[in-house]
Amino acid sequence: MGQKGYFITFEGVDGAGKSTHLKAAQEVLEARGYETLALREPGGTAMGEAIRSLVLDPAYGDTAAETELLLMCAARAQLVRTVIKPALEEGKAVLCDRFTDSTIAYQGYGRGLDLTRIGQVLEIATDGLRPDRTILLDADPEAITHRRKGRPDRIEEEDLDFQSKVRDGFLAAAADQPKRVRLLDASRDVSEISDEIASIIKEDIEDETDLRHRS
Amino acid sequence: MGQKGYFITFEGVDGAGKSTHLKAAQEVLEARGYETLALREPGGTAMGEAIRSLVLDPAYGDTAAETELLLMCAARAQLVRTVIKPALEEGKAVLCDRFTDSTIAYQGYGRGLDLTRIGQVLEIATDGLRPDRTILLDADPEAITHRRKGRPDRIEEEDLDFQSKVRDGFLAAAADQPKRVRLLDASRDVSEISDEIASIIKEDIEDETDLRHRS
Repeated sequence: MGQKGYFITFEGVDGAGKSTHLKAAQEVLEARGYETLALREPGGTAMGEAIRSLVLDPAYGDTAAETELLLMCAARAQLVRTVIKPALEEGKAVLCDRFTDSTIAYQGYGRGLDLTRIGQVLEIATDGLRPDRTILLDADPEAITHRRKGRPDRIEEEDLDFQSKVRDGFLAAAADQPKRVRLLDASRDVSEISDEIASIIKEDIEDETDLRHRS
Repeated sequence: MGQKGYFITFEGVDGAGKSTHLKAAQEVLEARGYETLALREPGGTAMGEAIRSLVLDPAYGDTAAETELLLMCAARAQLVRTVIKPALEEGKAVLCDRFTDSTIAYQGYGRGLDLTRIGQVLEIATDGLRPDRTILLDADPEAITHRRKGRPDRIEEEDLDFQSKVRDGFLAAAADQPKRVRLLDASRDVSEISDEIASIIKEDIEDETDLRHRS
């Protein structure tokens, strides 16, 4: 390893288990010798965390969907350029709780913004960076309402109809990019899901090692 | 008047006299019977002012150009939808200190971001809204350095080379849209410039009234 990092993102509606499985995946990658970096979106930089506190604050109830999109992408633009790309160049494994698929699911399917326009903003935000692997933890929002903790933020406050549209958006992303996005049923046993994610990661890394040996 | 408002923006490098001439123009419009609304960008909404304090804060010295672009446009998206468009629909005159031309000048010419990409983000931010009139107060940045007041913000801190590129951007905007943008030499006497702006506004309003009478 070392020449190039590994970039894995975790997607899904709130309560689907993203942070639990991200931590388990981080241990798998560390056991394989990777230096790791665990991040969340929006956030992960000083500017990004400041943006996070604005965009999720229930006090800004009249936030326009376009404002929300541009703020999410502003935080991402900063994270990609100052944290993710440098870490990948150093050969690290970067694990991110939410990335571009959340933008398509929440601001596209949830808020109803035009997907072509979202794609344009994502291109600016990511500078063309794509995850090597995305784990989509799929769950029926109604079935996991009880899993959410604490006071809901401005987006978590949205009703089940909104959360269902968001889920549809994630499923569309998985259908659209089946090579990158692995769709996992999040209603199963936690350890079963973790084992499956560990297998996916090991395969990814071995494929990559194979490629390097051949080249 | 009354059917439709009047949207005028003031552009130029820092110290060119935008706020002085905006106030004078506001008086002209009020004397003509308009209810007016004076705004500044980024800002003008609770969310926009919070974004302003982030994007101009010298503490965030490593802010990526793309982050800056997306933050400026996030503030604008909120301002257009919750303040400017509703005011114009009520027939008000809206005066704005900076708008889209500043994005092209600062983030495009100043920071070097691709103008096509900027255009895509501006379209999302403005929802297609264009000023009826733009006053570009043109000045050599070096000649007006002494006019700046107080501690410089993160963008004002940039050097003269940057400010010169920004000026070029404004001049390009004026050349590109000569019908909308009126280029005024800001090195002249303040009252002379104010008189010229007053004449421009009166012409705009009379043209508009003529059109209405004919339709």
